[in-house]
Amino acid sequence: MNIDKLFENVESRGHVCVGLDTAPDYVPPLERKAAQNSAEAVLAYNKSLIDSTFDVCACYKVQIAYYEEMGLEGLRAYSQTLKYIRSKGCLAIADIKRGDIADTAVRYAKAHFCGDFEADFVTLSPYMGMDSVDPWLKEAQASGKGAFVLMRTSNKGMKDFQYPDTYHKVGEKMSALMQQHKGRYGYGMFGVVVGCTERDEAAEIRRNHSGLFFLIPGYGAQGGGAQDVAPLLRGGNGGVVNASRSIITAWMTEEKAENAAEAARNAAIKMRDEIKKAI
Amino acid sequence: MNIDKLFENVESRGHVCVGLDTAPDYVPPLERKAAQNSAEAVLAYNKSLIDSTFDVCACYKVQIAYYEEMGLEGLRAYSQTLKYIRSKGCLAIADIKRGDIADTAVRYAKAHFCGDFEADFVTLSPYMGMDSVDPWLKEAQASGKGAFVLMRTSNKGMKDFQYPDTYHKVGEKMSALMQQHKGRYGYGMFGVVVGCTERDEAAEIRRNHSGLFFLIPGYGAQGGGAQDVAPLLRGGNGGVVNASRSIITAWMTEEKAENAAEAARNAAIKMRDEIKKAI
Repeated sequence: MNIDKLFENVESRGHVCVGLDTAPDYVPPLERKAAQNSAEAVLAYNKSLIDSTFDVCACYKVQIAYYEEMGLEGLRAYSQTLKYIRSKGCLAIADIKRGDIADTAVRYAKAHFCGDFEADFVTLSPYMGMDSVDPWLKEAQASGKGAFVLMRTSNKGMKDFQYPDTYHKVGEKMSALMQQHKGRYGYGMFGVVVGCTERDEAAEIRRNHSGLFFLIPGYGAQGGGAQDVAPLLRGGNGGVVNASRSIITAWMTEEKAENAAEAARNAAIKMRDEIKKAI
Repeated sequence: MNIDKLFENVESRGHVCVGLDTAPDYVPPLERKAAQNSAEAVLAYNKSLIDSTFDVCACYKVQIAYYEEMGLEGLRAYSQTLKYIRSKGCLAIADIKRGDIADTAVRYAKAHFCGDFEADFVTLSPYMGMDSVDPWLKEAQASGKGAFVLMRTSNKGMKDFQYPDTYHKVGEKMSALMQQHKGRYGYGMFGVVVGCTERDEAAEIRRNHSGLFFLIPGYGAQGGGAQDVAPLLRGGNGGVVNASRSIITAWMTEEKAENAAEAARNAAIKMRDEIKKAI
């Protein structure tokens, strides 16, 4: 099961999930100029980032929007980025936030659990209900693929519809569903997305969902810090913390690093150590 | 504004939205054999369907999952299908149910409001909150593009998280947001998805959201009929009703038609007339 591999990666490499939300203008100018087009530049830069960070992060999250914006060429770079991550033995989370039902959900699952866009995990949006999650679970049985279902996100507007209690319901249904689908470390093969922006609720969410692995956004730019992440973990594991721009654009502000890939590595290590210190 | 064109299409061509959820096995065997691969077969069949139905339907809805399943080649067929619809002067709804925030939402909007995947409308999922809708509205200002935000869907599991009141909140926020963004027929440039599967609530939803245009799923296979659609309309307009398999696979059961495209046309006309009769 991929969730077991993710747990093991957290043990050995820390909690950082590097977000490859790679816009063309996040690529350093010289590397941009060397490429044929934006999509090629993004792919080449992604490869250098993966090469420089794979041993200091638990996984990568690839936000498909940044690639879709570049059309078919962009999606080719998306496909190649996923392939490169997986070829290095690392885990790729496809941040696609799909949420659809029945036959449509089955098609999506086939699209992202195999073929050109094969990833190890996907993100899912639960608005339509649990029948938008179940088909993915069925498709994941044989392969051990995983998913993270949006529960409580880290953006300002999350209180619009996730509160007062919808996110609780999502968590409860996911915890119940995962009772029968646990890996060897006690975590369900599908987890949930829980932002680290509301520290007051963190301990309770962790307590209520001890069998769910968390994908944790909100670190850095959205205001969450290592102290906000710690209560979302359990025994120092059970979650990965996403950071994107603070890592992949670290070259814009760091002066010590020789190149952008080294700056990214330094930023990832710094974040990894901050979280380790806080737990 | 595209919402005005959609209103006008409903007036002149009726309420049917043809869903091009075209799986390779929905293509008649002879046409499938004639194509180089599945994606080519789907694209060629879509073109024949569009040719045979464009004057008897208000718009097309293209479900991206069916194309994503075929990988990069599938997405090329998706792109070409959208282009073909738009080249005939028809309206294309990209059923992508995206739902993300901030810069990511802007990237998605650029991806689907222009470039390879340009559509006239998109579908959006509101789980993350209104900050997952606002960036699309901003991007749509100049072009008059539209969107349909999931409010109350037509699947069995919709009561999991849309009830008891989340769908009301989505409707209220969308109605409020559209106060300042109305087209010439009184409908907001962004509408909502409301299934025709819960007849009891239909009149109230229509009354509460008189300024929102509805994209209506649930007709046919999911149990909704013309009698369930009627109360969701207002003065005979204000909504389009999606049907996919009952139209694009009509050739499987209809014996009178000469070919699959004619069977689709007959099915679309039959549905159009059923709805007209009920209102």
